[in-house]
Amino acid sequence: MTRSHHSFSEDFSEEERRGLYRAIYERRDVRSQFLPDPIPSDVLGRLLEAAHHAPSVGFMQPWDFLVIDSIEVRRRVLENFEHENTRAADNYDGERRSSYLALKLQGILDSPLNICITCDRSRGGPTVLGRNTIVETDLFSTCLAVQNLWLAARAEGIGVGWVSILDQQRLAQVLELPESVYPLAYLCVGYVSEFLEQPELEARGWRSRLPLQQLVHHNGWQQTLDAEHPLAEWLSERSSGISSRDT
Amino acid sequence: MTRSHHSFSEDFSEEERRGLYRAIYERRDVRSQFLPDPIPSDVLGRLLEAAHHAPSVGFMQPWDFLVIDSIEVRRRVLENFEHENTRAADNYDGERRSSYLALKLQGILDSPLNICITCDRSRGGPTVLGRNTIVETDLFSTCLAVQNLWLAARAEGIGVGWVSILDQQRLAQVLELPESVYPLAYLCVGYVSEFLEQPELEARGWRSRLPLQQLVHHNGWQQTLDAEHPLAEWLSERSSGISSRDT
Repeated sequence: MTRSHHSFSEDFSEEERRGLYRAIYERRDVRSQFLPDPIPSDVLGRLLEAAHHAPSVGFMQPWDFLVIDSIEVRRRVLENFEHENTRAADNYDGERRSSYLALKLQGILDSPLNICITCDRSRGGPTVLGRNTIVETDLFSTCLAVQNLWLAARAEGIGVGWVSILDQQRLAQVLELPESVYPLAYLCVGYVSEFLEQPELEARGWRSRLPLQQLVHHNGWQQTLDAEHPLAEWLSERSSGISSRDT
Repeated sequence: MTRSHHSFSEDFSEEERRGLYRAIYERRDVRSQFLPDPIPSDVLGRLLEAAHHAPSVGFMQPWDFLVIDSIEVRRRVLENFEHENTRAADNYDGERRSSYLALKLQGILDSPLNICITCDRSRGGPTVLGRNTIVETDLFSTCLAVQNLWLAARAEGIGVGWVSILDQQRLAQVLELPESVYPLAYLCVGYVSEFLEQPELEARGWRSRLPLQQLVHHNGWQQTLDAEHPLAEWLSERSSGISSRDT
C-alpha cells in the first residue's frame, strides 16, 4: 500500500500536497461522462477502505456499503428517480423548467457500478460517545465517508455522481434495508471520458460559485474580517486574481 | 496555486495519489496535541477554499465559515461544552464512566483557532435543485465541506478536532446566527505535536475499528459478496494481512 513508504508524522511533500488539492478541486459530480469499463477490484477496495477511514462520532463507524451491479436493481432505482424527478420538475416554470428538464441528473445505468452508502442509526447501542447532544451526528459521519470515497475516486481517475432525487423509503425497500438503516447516499461510480473543468450546474448557468470572501465571518455572524486582517487581504487578492476556470 | 501545474484530466502521479491517501489515513480527530503556533493566513485561506470547493446539492453552497480567535467567545463555547459533557457523563456507570471522564474531548482553548462551519438552510430560495425529496441534503453538503477542510488541514500538517458535545441552540446564540443558519460543525484547528498512529478512541480501547469485510453487501442488504468475487478475495487478503497499525 502507498501509505507504508513514509513515517507517520512526516510532512507532506509538495507533490503529495498537490495530489490532495487536485482531488478537491478536480472532483466533479458526474452524470454524463461515464464509460462502461469495469472497475478493478483492488481499485474498488481502495475506495471502500478510504470511505471506511472517515472520522465518526464516538468511533461509531455507522456506514455500510452496498455494491450494486445488478441491472434489475438499478432499473428499479432508476424508476424511483424518474418518478421523483417528474415531481421535482413541477417546481419550475417556463424557461427554468425547460432548462431543468434538459439537465441529466443521474448515471444509474450508464455507470458500471452503483454504491449505496448507508447509516445504521442503531450501531454502537443506545449511547454513542459525543452523540447525545446532536443525534444526527451519525448521518454527518456517514457524509464524511462519502467525501473520502469521492476524493479517492478522483485520484484513481474515477467519477462519482450522487443521486439525491430519490424517495428514500422506496429505495430502502428495493435494497431490503433493516428499519434502523438509512440509505444516505446513492452513488454512480465509473471511469469517465473527462472531468469537466467546471461543475456542470455552473457551466450551464444554473447557479454561480459564491465568492468565498462573502462567506467568511469573524468571531460571530455579524462581524466580517477587518480589511487589514491578513486573511481578508489574502481572500481579496485571490478573488480579484481568479479566473473563471480556477473557481 | 499548486493546481495550475498540470492539465485538468491528467492522471494523478503515484506521489499525488499517495498524498490523497495519506491525508485520508493519517487524518485524526485531534483533542490533545495542539500547539499554540498561529496559522499563516495563506494556509488558512487554502483550508477555507478547499472547504468551499465541496460538492453541494443544486450547487447550493449552503456553508459559511466563522473564524473564531476571540478568547471571550471561545470561553463561552467551552462553558457550553462543559455543561453538555457533564450531562453526557451521566450515561455511563462505574469503570466506563471513569474511562469517559478521563478522555479529553475538546481543544477549544488549546488550539489557536476555532472554525464554525454553518449551514444556511434558506440559501438559494425555497426550491433547490435535487433537494426537494430529501431536505437534509443541505446539511449533508456542509459535511462534505467539513471533510475537505479536515483533509486539506492534514496535508498542511494541521490538526482538526470536531466538538460535537455542544448545545446547538446556545452555540447559535453565542455566535449570533440568524434563524435559518445551523451551526453544523465546531472545529478546533491548529498545528500539532504529532498525529497519533491510531484514532484516540481506538488506542484507548473505547471502541475497535470494524472489519471492512463485514460492511460490504452485494445488490441489497441481505446478500454478501460470493467468496469467489474478486472484491471479496481482495477484502479478505487485506483483512488477514493487516497490522493493527495499518487499520
